[in-house]
Amino acid sequence: MAINKNMQWLLKSRPAGMISPDQFELTESEVPVLKEGEVLAKVLLLSFDPTQRAWMSMDTYIPAVNLGEPMRAGGIAQVIESRNSKFKPGDLVNSFCGWQEYVVFQPDNPKFVPVTRIPGHLDPKLILALSLTGLTAYFGMLEIGCPKRGETVLISGAAGATGSVAGQIAKLKGCKVVGIAGGEKKCKWLKEIAKFDFAIDYKNQEIAQELDRVCPEGVDVYFDNVGGPITDEVLMRINQNARVVLCGAISQYNQKIEDIYGLQNYLSLIINRGRAEGFIILDYLDRALEGLLKLTSWVENGDLIQEIDLQYGFENIPSTLLRIFNGDNVGKQILQLAEPPLPIRTNPAEQLIFSIMQKLSGLRG
Amino acid sequence: MAINKNMQWLLKSRPAGMISPDQFELTESEVPVLKEGEVLAKVLLLSFDPTQRAWMSMDTYIPAVNLGEPMRAGGIAQVIESRNSKFKPGDLVNSFCGWQEYVVFQPDNPKFVPVTRIPGHLDPKLILALSLTGLTAYFGMLEIGCPKRGETVLISGAAGATGSVAGQIAKLKGCKVVGIAGGEKKCKWLKEIAKFDFAIDYKNQEIAQELDRVCPEGVDVYFDNVGGPITDEVLMRINQNARVVLCGAISQYNQKIEDIYGLQNYLSLIINRGRAEGFIILDYLDRALEGLLKLTSWVENGDLIQEIDLQYGFENIPSTLLRIFNGDNVGKQILQLAEPPLPIRTNPAEQLIFSIMQKLSGLRG
Repeated sequence: MAINKNMQWLLKSRPAGMISPDQFELTESEVPVLKEGEVLAKVLLLSFDPTQRAWMSMDTYIPAVNLGEPMRAGGIAQVIESRNSKFKPGDLVNSFCGWQEYVVFQPDNPKFVPVTRIPGHLDPKLILALSLTGLTAYFGMLEIGCPKRGETVLISGAAGATGSVAGQIAKLKGCKVVGIAGGEKKCKWLKEIAKFDFAIDYKNQEIAQELDRVCPEGVDVYFDNVGGPITDEVLMRINQNARVVLCGAISQYNQKIEDIYGLQNYLSLIINRGRAEGFIILDYLDRALEGLLKLTSWVENGDLIQEIDLQYGFENIPSTLLRIFNGDNVGKQILQLAEPPLPIRTNPAEQLIFSIMQKLSGLRG
Repeated sequence: MAINKNMQWLLKSRPAGMISPDQFELTESEVPVLKEGEVLAKVLLLSFDPTQRAWMSMDTYIPAVNLGEPMRAGGIAQVIESRNSKFKPGDLVNSFCGWQEYVVFQPDNPKFVPVTRIPGHLDPKLILALSLTGLTAYFGMLEIGCPKRGETVLISGAAGATGSVAGQIAKLKGCKVVGIAGGEKKCKWLKEIAKFDFAIDYKNQEIAQELDRVCPEGVDVYFDNVGGPITDEVLMRINQNARVVLCGAISQYNQKIEDIYGLQNYLSLIINRGRAEGFIILDYLDRALEGLLKLTSWVENGDLIQEIDLQYGFENIPSTLLRIFNGDNVGKQILQLAEPPLPIRTNPAEQLIFSIMQKLSGLRG
């Protein structure tokens, strides 16, 4: 298969305030000739995540995207040519694909994030939806939040891809779960579909008053995706030995440095012997399989709702990123460039291995 | 011994900004007749601690002092009359004594903090100096900070009673230790007496620049006694998996609510997978003996310098509290109302038990 042209969205400028589609530039480049060890794959699905704002701006837990390079994005791609013995044409893989039609992987280069083959019986969209944000929710809630039966767990950004999964996991652990989200539609979804006990609409309700009303007993675990003034209100209401899971701060990512909101109520962490702890999902990638098997088994059993907000078309990539900062998405934001193959459930050996691993994963949890 | 009159300093009003001696009122009251189970003791030494500002203001980890009641304070007292079989006249005890000449204890009342008898061979001033702040440094540094050999440990309020002990403990654990303190005299003390590797004078030096100069490798453990803008500067420089020990925030205690400094750089905790954790020494009182034996053995071996800033006179109690907020003290602020008995080192049985316990405590550490 001879492919020469590769459409790409390059990062043109760094955001100061709110991101804008103007910060990206559409170009056509050549697909390079593969070197030994490399793999060429066609990008099928792209993931959109709040953390991409940081990648556009500056070096954080990973280096910023260089100006003039394709925007970084997680995705699912299908191998079309391979000079690496571990991959063959047709394989579905999950890795950083970038905003482009074709991606060249160097699976053996330890500098890059792993290129993970996806077992054919799993749904690629679900795997992508769960890969970054679902695993973030899984490890953040269970390893940092440590929710105990009967505790009150509060989630901000609760209708987002991470928040909605984090809340449902706390619910599975026997907690009272309260979500904060923007708008009536999202709050209705949280209560009726994701089965949160309460939802607070920060756009139309007084947060302080609603927190007092629905959590008079205080908050034991706060899974924070938004930061800023909402976090300050919550800190006023934490219980003794509370855990604050610092997952993200989407309310602040588009602020200019001088406008970043300062947390006044951190003294509450002293008085209440609280712990605020940040984490990055990259540190848990060696346990990704454990998490994905657990999450997919919950989805298959109907215990976990993973909504996917699916957009289409290469030309719509930049505007799709805006959706998550405008709060337009409900659930995981994905864009499809090409239809992925349907899950295959016919290989008995693979099916057996999968079911054993699912069982083992169930025993652990 | 018939004692009828008890001089007391009562809390008259709650502080809004900086505390003032006007917030206390000197009165003379009657010593009540002892009930069954109670103990009357003469107050010998009083402890002055930043946390007293919180006790004056509002309910925090313990209820605020009621207006019209003696100001709460840790202290050492000597029993002069007892209707409790566990205490006899002459016993030295450590507990909350309050700003008064005589205190009535109810040792069996679980509502109050424990009344601990001090073994006669220990120096009462040293025990008082180490009781609240030394134990705070001990458990805060070792249990929350978890310093590892070779790491960089930064202490704010480093010349204070807690900070100076915290830094020396980190030094004993093989860390590079940097202290932030106000004024040349304190910084000289930190380097020359307490053997910190570096000291930063926040009153005469540019903190950001000095941090970059003396900690170019970043900060692994930040033991924070001051809060506010200094904490924000440090958060910009924490290393991956850093621990921030939230011990106090003396820079903010005298602020009006609306003037409390908001921490902008808490997002650094996410990027660096950092943990900021508050704690209260009251939660560790069941392990106080372990800590005190360890600390006193370090002092006796010359591994730990515990400076004591000793003031005298009942009339000087309120102005002595001001000293720790003005930054006038170096080391633990204590006021002596009456000379405590000298340590007794002649009881062989007690001496044996003590040395065995010290050895056991040494084996643990």
